[in-house]
Amino acid sequence: MKTLIVHAHPEPKSLNSSLKDIAVSTLTAAGHEVQISDLYAMKWKAAVDAEDYGPDASIPLKVAADSGRAFDAGTLTPDVRAEQEKLLWADTIILQFPLWWYTMPAILKGWVDRVFTYRFAYGVGEHSDTKYGERFGEGTLAGRRALLSVTAGGPESHYTARGINGPIEDLLFPIQHGILYYPGIDVLPPFVLYGTDHTTDEDFPAIAQAWKQRLLTLESTEPIAFRRQNFGDYEIPSLWLKEGLEPAGRNGFGLHVRA
Amino acid sequence: MKTLIVHAHPEPKSLNSSLKDIAVSTLTAAGHEVQISDLYAMKWKAAVDAEDYGPDASIPLKVAADSGRAFDAGTLTPDVRAEQEKLLWADTIILQFPLWWYTMPAILKGWVDRVFTYRFAYGVGEHSDTKYGERFGEGTLAGRRALLSVTAGGPESHYTARGINGPIEDLLFPIQHGILYYPGIDVLPPFVLYGTDHTTDEDFPAIAQAWKQRLLTLESTEPIAFRRQNFGDYEIPSLWLKEGLEPAGRNGFGLHVRA
Repeated sequence: MKTLIVHAHPEPKSLNSSLKDIAVSTLTAAGHEVQISDLYAMKWKAAVDAEDYGPDASIPLKVAADSGRAFDAGTLTPDVRAEQEKLLWADTIILQFPLWWYTMPAILKGWVDRVFTYRFAYGVGEHSDTKYGERFGEGTLAGRRALLSVTAGGPESHYTARGINGPIEDLLFPIQHGILYYPGIDVLPPFVLYGTDHTTDEDFPAIAQAWKQRLLTLESTEPIAFRRQNFGDYEIPSLWLKEGLEPAGRNGFGLHVRA
Repeated sequence: MKTLIVHAHPEPKSLNSSLKDIAVSTLTAAGHEVQISDLYAMKWKAAVDAEDYGPDASIPLKVAADSGRAFDAGTLTPDVRAEQEKLLWADTIILQFPLWWYTMPAILKGWVDRVFTYRFAYGVGEHSDTKYGERFGEGTLAGRRALLSVTAGGPESHYTARGINGPIEDLLFPIQHGILYYPGIDVLPPFVLYGTDHTTDEDFPAIAQAWKQRLLTLESTEPIAFRRQNFGDYEIPSLWLKEGLEPAGRNGFGLHVRA
């Protein structure tokens, strides 16, 4: 595998950083190639602004259109171009982050906002009676697989079907489906550690073992069965799931996963 | 009303900035007090790091514990303290932002990550057999109301119950429930504009009119009926919704809204 690890924690001695280190050593030892984007170490710029598009920034700024023009012209900033090249190089992408306020830290959202430009990650492909662009199962990053490795401070029960936070698969849906599957990446079931507010050194060997096990079985893991947009499951252009396709008793985000 | 508007768009001539300007003029003309946090104009720092906690940053950094200690000691950075003071001053909070990759822009997530510290927005209240801290309906910011004002590039059909993006209320749930309701803020139904990739100048008068109407009726608008954590709906400490409380046919995030 060629694996890109995007890592988003400010403390090199944190649990998240340890998981990143284990991923590097485990995958390298197994003969895989690894690149790392350690966003805090890189002092990654999080906020999209006109500086991102250089001479292609229009006045007034139009984020989508300008980012697409800069992408086509090759004038995006070097930090963004380097990340796009890593994504094109990789066949496997791991996002390592703590769940802060039920989603990714700002620095990682800023990696998405700046790297996933128009014409690269969206605004790809034609529209017709049977196709609404290339997205959700097709796109620039098709053929790649991604895995979220996430730490959650609270206990697992709070993230289950009846838990007060909502089910973890729904909390992660906007990331797994909306960010990763959108430009064509298949998404593996996430590796989630719960209760990490109270994790101790004694817990670590079992955590490390479970994580290594996931890493060494990535190639044989089946992705989440998100529905492809342009292959008959959705009306076009409303993009409503066709009647009769929903699994019994399922609604909300769950409709978009095949039974 | 005392309204805090937190605004997250880089272009002063954007639709989002126009909506922010309308909010300021409409509320001021109606006799309300308004403060604005224009995050791009303030060059808001998005990424949480050790600099946020000054002398209270431990080695290694512990984000939750250190932020709480700095909050208690009054040693958080001046930019963060100013935002916490604005939140305590306000009775109404409007977050104005474009939906980028199905959630808020990184700069606004960074406002949450840095301002919603431990001991201020979480880690508040005691734990007992009948109480799991003060959160989800109680907390430092109880008694306040919030409104998301959001622009979405795609058409409304894509954000409905069967739409491919998932229902807008589920996409916004981690923000409305997980970020705002968590520290005690009641949340009003959002003001969402769809199809803004194709909005023209001719569309603007109707948009402005609808927005003014929402702004002038905020005080009489009923909040979303999220379930309070500590008042009998949930088992403690599992925080599972008690059996029999779920509305018929509803699952996922919808369980946490009263019928």
